[in-house]
Amino acid sequence: MKSPRFALNCVRAVVAATLGVAASVSVAAPTVTRLTPPSERFATGVNDPSAPMIARFLPGQRFDLQATIRPDAGATITGFQFAVDGVTVPVTASTSGIVTTGLNAGLPANTAVVSKRAYSNTVPGVHTLTVKATQSDGQTVTATGSFEVVGITNQGRPAKNIIILLGDGMGAAHRTAARIMAKGYAQGKAKGHLAMDTFPYTGMVMTSSLDTIVTDSAPGMANYVNGNKQASGQEGVWPDDTADAFDNPRMEYLSEYLHRTQGKSLGIVTTADVFDATPAANAVHTSNRGNGTGIADQYLDDRKLTGLTVLMGGGRKWFLPNASNSVSPQPANGSQRRAANDYVLTSDIVSGWGAAVGAKDPERDLISDFSAAGYTYVSDKSALQSAGVPDKLLGLFAYSNMNVAFDKINGRRGVSSVVNDYGFPDQPMLEEMTDKAIKVLAKNPKGFVLTVEGASIDKQAHLMDSDRWIEEVIEFDRAVQVAKNFATANPDTLVIVTADHETGGASILGASKVTNAELQGKANTVASMRNEVVGTYQDAKFPKYTIAADGYPATTDIDNKMLIGYGANADRYEAWIANAQPTQDSQQPFVGTAPLNTYPANPSVRNASTGYLVTGQVSGDQAVHTATDIPLSAFGRGAALFTGVMDNTDVFFKFGQAAIGGVK
Amino acid sequence: MKSPRFALNCVRAVVAATLGVAASVSVAAPTVTRLTPPSERFATGVNDPSAPMIARFLPGQRFDLQATIRPDAGATITGFQFAVDGVTVPVTASTSGIVTTGLNAGLPANTAVVSKRAYSNTVPGVHTLTVKATQSDGQTVTATGSFEVVGITNQGRPAKNIIILLGDGMGAAHRTAARIMAKGYAQGKAKGHLAMDTFPYTGMVMTSSLDTIVTDSAPGMANYVNGNKQASGQEGVWPDDTADAFDNPRMEYLSEYLHRTQGKSLGIVTTADVFDATPAANAVHTSNRGNGTGIADQYLDDRKLTGLTVLMGGGRKWFLPNASNSVSPQPANGSQRRAANDYVLTSDIVSGWGAAVGAKDPERDLISDFSAAGYTYVSDKSALQSAGVPDKLLGLFAYSNMNVAFDKINGRRGVSSVVNDYGFPDQPMLEEMTDKAIKVLAKNPKGFVLTVEGASIDKQAHLMDSDRWIEEVIEFDRAVQVAKNFATANPDTLVIVTADHETGGASILGASKVTNAELQGKANTVASMRNEVVGTYQDAKFPKYTIAADGYPATTDIDNKMLIGYGANADRYEAWIANAQPTQDSQQPFVGTAPLNTYPANPSVRNASTGYLVTGQVSGDQAVHTATDIPLSAFGRGAALFTGVMDNTDVFFKFGQAAIGGVK
Repeated sequence: MKSPRFALNCVRAVVAATLGVAASVSVAAPTVTRLTPPSERFATGVNDPSAPMIARFLPGQRFDLQATIRPDAGATITGFQFAVDGVTVPVTASTSGIVTTGLNAGLPANTAVVSKRAYSNTVPGVHTLTVKATQSDGQTVTATGSFEVVGITNQGRPAKNIIILLGDGMGAAHRTAARIMAKGYAQGKAKGHLAMDTFPYTGMVMTSSLDTIVTDSAPGMANYVNGNKQASGQEGVWPDDTADAFDNPRMEYLSEYLHRTQGKSLGIVTTADVFDATPAANAVHTSNRGNGTGIADQYLDDRKLTGLTVLMGGGRKWFLPNASNSVSPQPANGSQRRAANDYVLTSDIVSGWGAAVGAKDPERDLISDFSAAGYTYVSDKSALQSAGVPDKLLGLFAYSNMNVAFDKINGRRGVSSVVNDYGFPDQPMLEEMTDKAIKVLAKNPKGFVLTVEGASIDKQAHLMDSDRWIEEVIEFDRAVQVAKNFATANPDTLVIVTADHETGGASILGASKVTNAELQGKANTVASMRNEVVGTYQDAKFPKYTIAADGYPATTDIDNKMLIGYGANADRYEAWIANAQPTQDSQQPFVGTAPLNTYPANPSVRNASTGYLVTGQVSGDQAVHTATDIPLSAFGRGAALFTGVMDNTDVFFKFGQAAIGGVK
Repeated sequence: MKSPRFALNCVRAVVAATLGVAASVSVAAPTVTRLTPPSERFATGVNDPSAPMIARFLPGQRFDLQATIRPDAGATITGFQFAVDGVTVPVTASTSGIVTTGLNAGLPANTAVVSKRAYSNTVPGVHTLTVKATQSDGQTVTATGSFEVVGITNQGRPAKNIIILLGDGMGAAHRTAARIMAKGYAQGKAKGHLAMDTFPYTGMVMTSSLDTIVTDSAPGMANYVNGNKQASGQEGVWPDDTADAFDNPRMEYLSEYLHRTQGKSLGIVTTADVFDATPAANAVHTSNRGNGTGIADQYLDDRKLTGLTVLMGGGRKWFLPNASNSVSPQPANGSQRRAANDYVLTSDIVSGWGAAVGAKDPERDLISDFSAAGYTYVSDKSALQSAGVPDKLLGLFAYSNMNVAFDKINGRRGVSSVVNDYGFPDQPMLEEMTDKAIKVLAKNPKGFVLTVEGASIDKQAHLMDSDRWIEEVIEFDRAVQVAKNFATANPDTLVIVTADHETGGASILGASKVTNAELQGKANTVASMRNEVVGTYQDAKFPKYTIAADGYPATTDIDNKMLIGYGANADRYEAWIANAQPTQDSQQPFVGTAPLNTYPANPSVRNASTGYLVTGQVSGDQAVHTATDIPLSAFGRGAALFTGVMDNTDVFFKFGQAAIGGVK
């Protein structure tokens, strides 16, 4: 599947790059309308060393070559050839092909997509990629792009294990707010530090995706772990011109690369549904992050490519059989599996990559298949804790996203209405999942890659549910501490804490000027609830939360509480008090019955009777992501590589240096 | 002058720390109600090593010891004694004293403020500070606090020169937005980098002040350059209990310390009025950042303490004589000098610190006095450029704040209405001032400390004038490049780029979905000007500005322009187009006549006829500062010290290490 807006840009650029064809005259020969990997270096038709190198790879990292070629009217594409630095890339029938069916609507007749799958190159430096195509009348066209193989230097001690802790949507304000709440400040100084604050190195990361300055979570994660820019909603692939969302040109993930070359294992832990963009963008190749059934299947079916050993989070709805292939009515077991978002791979991908072909099988019992493949399955915290340290582990603790820390902790404190309503009263905290994941993964003497996502920092910031996302950062930081403890005991481990993007334009305004009792009694007007409440500068002082033994505030509704504003806000009703009920957003879990219908649908109705209306700066019913650079923190072996301002794709090559070349 | 809210906190803490006096019983003996430097370590009456050490100093750095003591009714304080680690600190009549007059209103009769000026300690480690006071009936009271002397290790190569480039209010979003506008992005990657992006080390800085999580610019700057937390509106001093704003207990600035111990020079360059908080917080000691007359005087009169060699920016109104001591009516020359915000220092400060006593002299011709002291004075860009490289330099290019880059550049492009209206058509850009400042300072073979402030990043973010603050970051970054060039040629130079705090909760929403012509034709409704305009995620694409030869966008009103939201916003009318007229905020320059009255007063009226109303999340008429950590970048000798998450006061000790102990 293509990314529509990107395609327009790309066509423009590559047409300009097409040699021997003037872009401004009518087409009198075949035309290359897309060349993948995408280039900036040759966008003007000449090699421009000042232009950013879009496609970069580690030595030997695999990726697909692909071009879209439009023949003259009445002609067809009869042959093609890729060359790198003028040397023809061998193609075989099993790993290459010409596709002329299943293309996106609107393309001219006989448009052809030609591919060479799973190419790789071990020679560091910038390489010129050329595609030459021949049409049925013998006319040819050539187009040129570029890519770079990034050299690795042998420095000494490699990082055996890499732990990536990704706080989804966690910008600088989210980190600061969690510190203020969890640690407190006195006389201007933090009375304690978050675990992530103690990491010795920090960097700033540029987060844009292939097609926009404001990324979504799919490229936001994927760019870190394959070194290349991906387009909105896409993971592990570049855009193409076919309708199939699973046949796009691929690039190899860190997990795949290090499993293939070093035998490392992969672990994925999230508080979201495991099909969600961030977890999937470590292991799954699709141009549509919404393809839950196929994504869940690919985790298992291509485990031999990725080394998947641990998978934990929510998302059980994708693993339960749906013999009817219907989600309306929903099967009684809550399954949302459907053929429509499943896949069968093309033969060149299967042969080129060694991938499993797949099947459109909504009736599949994927938990059973995981079990048959040797994974121990756990469905709640108790089972997780009693599972010991199995060789492989699957944990699915909710139908969709797990409940957030605020509600899980309330459940553990005996106020379990929310987790009960959602149907999952015994969900683990992120640090409990992380601890178990590390124990399982550490059994592999060749090391592991583990991605841990604090998913609902983002989801609750979208909903402008301030107290919930702040506690989500606190939960995430407790998982950071677990990872840090492991890396301290195992100094051949690299740990980074980062984010895929900032969510919400979250801003720490200051603190309430009034007591909680006074706040609760305020009228729902700007004059009362804003002007009489929001304390800025000196009026903010130092909000003082009491932290309970479980590590979370006894209550977030303290007198003079910290207050949060949003720079990328949709309309909301703001009451400044913790929302007793979480908002029912579009990603909330299915539970079979309908208690969620009692929850407010979005922030522009939530608190309508207890808050005042804040006009949003964006439309819709959620705050949005922003383009702001985000902070990264690094600890352990290779951490010193991760300072300065860097692109998210740069992070991948630092991983490569640490894991392959090592550090001094 | 005290900071009222801080005082409440501090009294509570220190009363609790008072030994031998139960805070909960009625007073039956004298009570220490404040002990300075402030402590957290002893706040509960016991030494708590886990508590943050509030007061820290470099070896030998000077600071004042002070206590406020309340005697019993009818009694007076007759004697006092400070001790450090149980050893009495010698006091002399000339550097110490008991003050019982001029105290803040509301203090009990006979309350006494006792001081020992310009104390210093060279022994690294935590020290216990004790004050013992005796009242007229012989009863005594003792209170205990703590401070730390931070050890410096001899590492080798010192940083001879330190250049601090402070983008006022510049958070992560401000940096990102400037990169997007000035450098452009293609296919997800920045096509170029800001100069500050190229610095090899980055850190994240916690910015809180002594009395609030949300600092203003006075402590925001001062905390960096004296290593201690200061309270809102205060610079180079701690709060006290007297009404005099110039007698507060002082701590030595980096400039003073390195001038005294190493003979370095000080340079201060800003686009603000030179009396403004950020510039003054490098050299001036006052508890009220608004004391323009005294602040301007102290720059000159205490130049032998600070080594002040270069002072450039706006603020000429404080330097022109005002024989009438009246600002209403204003003298014809535009002076705003007044006795009310000038000073005469107490004799213990004069003796202890070697400071000039000062005089309340609104009639003073301060430019003449600077000239008499050897400073070359320049009043516009032409004079600056033709001044050569004098030994000392004073540049005052506007009555108050200089015009912003957007308007200065328009002036240079021949659209000079704004700079003409403000009366200063020939103002230098920040990089021109910076270049000259470095040339002058570099004449000192012992090195220099230079602070360069991009002041209106903050001021325009307050006003939510997006295009103006983005161009302000671009101007600032051009000064960063000048500093980097110098440090490249002079590798014994340390350069840091940082901010005092974030302003506005600035957020890059995305970009306009429409052309500029379409935008200009939109109706002033949420439906038209928000829902039809604000493009998020994929709709944002990559805004493409054309950069003119002068380094700034040919226009910021491009089709599909970048759009900014604010998380700490007051009400505003938003039209998304560049405001032809800058907003007349409270800090705009005085110009004698009244053209400024034709400018809009604030964002909640600006664009009222061309924009839609965005409800603010704070009251007032400006966006506010936020508590969010800000990024810091470092280049040159000692740069590697500046990574990780740090407090703003930590930065001072890294300067100390670099300048004294050096780095490997």
